[in-house]
Amino acid sequence: MASQRKIEVCLSPLLLPLYALEDKLVVVIDVLRATTAICVGFEHGVKSIRPVATPEESLALKAAGYLAAAERNGEVVAGFDFGNSPFAYMNGKVKDRQVALTTTNGTKAIQLSKGAKELFIGSFANLQAIVDFLAGRSEDVLLVCAGWKDNFNLEDTLFAGAVVEQLSKKEQISCDAALAAKILYGEAKTDLFGFIRQSSHFQRLAKMGIEEDIKLCMTLNLTRKIPVLRGNELVALK
Amino acid sequence: MASQRKIEVCLSPLLLPLYALEDKLVVVIDVLRATTAICVGFEHGVKSIRPVATPEESLALKAAGYLAAAERNGEVVAGFDFGNSPFAYMNGKVKDRQVALTTTNGTKAIQLSKGAKELFIGSFANLQAIVDFLAGRSEDVLLVCAGWKDNFNLEDTLFAGAVVEQLSKKEQISCDAALAAKILYGEAKTDLFGFIRQSSHFQRLAKMGIEEDIKLCMTLNLTRKIPVLRGNELVALK
Repeated sequence: MASQRKIEVCLSPLLLPLYALEDKLVVVIDVLRATTAICVGFEHGVKSIRPVATPEESLALKAAGYLAAAERNGEVVAGFDFGNSPFAYMNGKVKDRQVALTTTNGTKAIQLSKGAKELFIGSFANLQAIVDFLAGRSEDVLLVCAGWKDNFNLEDTLFAGAVVEQLSKKEQISCDAALAAKILYGEAKTDLFGFIRQSSHFQRLAKMGIEEDIKLCMTLNLTRKIPVLRGNELVALK
Repeated sequence: MASQRKIEVCLSPLLLPLYALEDKLVVVIDVLRATTAICVGFEHGVKSIRPVATPEESLALKAAGYLAAAERNGEVVAGFDFGNSPFAYMNGKVKDRQVALTTTNGTKAIQLSKGAKELFIGSFANLQAIVDFLAGRSEDVLLVCAGWKDNFNLEDTLFAGAVVEQLSKKEQISCDAALAAKILYGEAKTDLFGFIRQSSHFQRLAKMGIEEDIKLCMTLNLTRKIPVLRGNELVALK
């Protein structure tokens, strides 16, 4: 199936203008921690998640019944119910609720990718579900790494590489970034957590004492849920 | 020496605004083929090379005694003496001459990096010379990959990784892009040419019948010359 389609990796949101999104299936990736938290949230019964640009927008939606979540620079913004720690989405609080979420990198990458034919959320938590889903579709695929403050990061690239590795068993890959991501994942996969200890973001987050968060974010296949953007809200793909 | 300095890799010219250049030693990399041709040119006695933005600027300098060189999309622009094939810089024609050069990616990356404290030109052709030089300096280092039309490419990243691998023997690396580049080079180094056959740019260039160019561009240490920008001209570092 779809042997001629393109499977590409965009290594930073700043590179997004180089891609035509409108015919593509786009998967937005912010492994540490926004897209992991979103995937875990749907596994734990969240009704929908609205990605918003600012803490003010998140707070404004509280009046409309949303839980308000906001993270900046790895920390929960003062005055918010929670940020982007996946554990905050696993304690029963989000069940059947709508959440408004703004984060340093992930929600920005989602906003910038809204021109896609369809926009999905990927993380190691739903890796196999994403791979199986993409393998069953025929459109071009663009894996968008949210990165750190617009620059390249290792962890998002590794997840992109994990997807590419599996799809490349049946499909040809001609994007240099996809090839690089696949090779990096090949190096990392036997010890993802150990590998990611080298990354700059690990060092930022470890200082905050959230090593358990990072371990969870490096855990494969916690859910089969695939969050998809419908209008302004992420919902679980049926 | 200089154990605390930053050694970073910028994977695309579009990411350059994320870096403060003014205190940094910047090495611009366009392995296929501009920066290889420039390094080889100095080995073969070129007096200076002026990177310019357009073929028109290159032609205009012909009246001032320059050799005019221009490449776009892998081909010599019609009406020019030559483009960016390293072999054109090895046949005695460039000796003691000034060259005006514009290329698809490399000269653009040079223009965008002019804010550096000092700007150098790197390629596999002068790898060891660049490494030895940088190891003897104490300033922060930024390795700038010219990429392909503003996006990531494998070959420039591999060269950056080769530099990082050697510097990391004595210095700590905390830039994710530098770590990734180093890992990719580790995978590629036993068969650089074979590795680069996978890349998108190889496939573009191979269609033009210039496989010999690519082999030359993947050959290590053809020269000890380090081109450095002085004003508007690249000259050999004394």
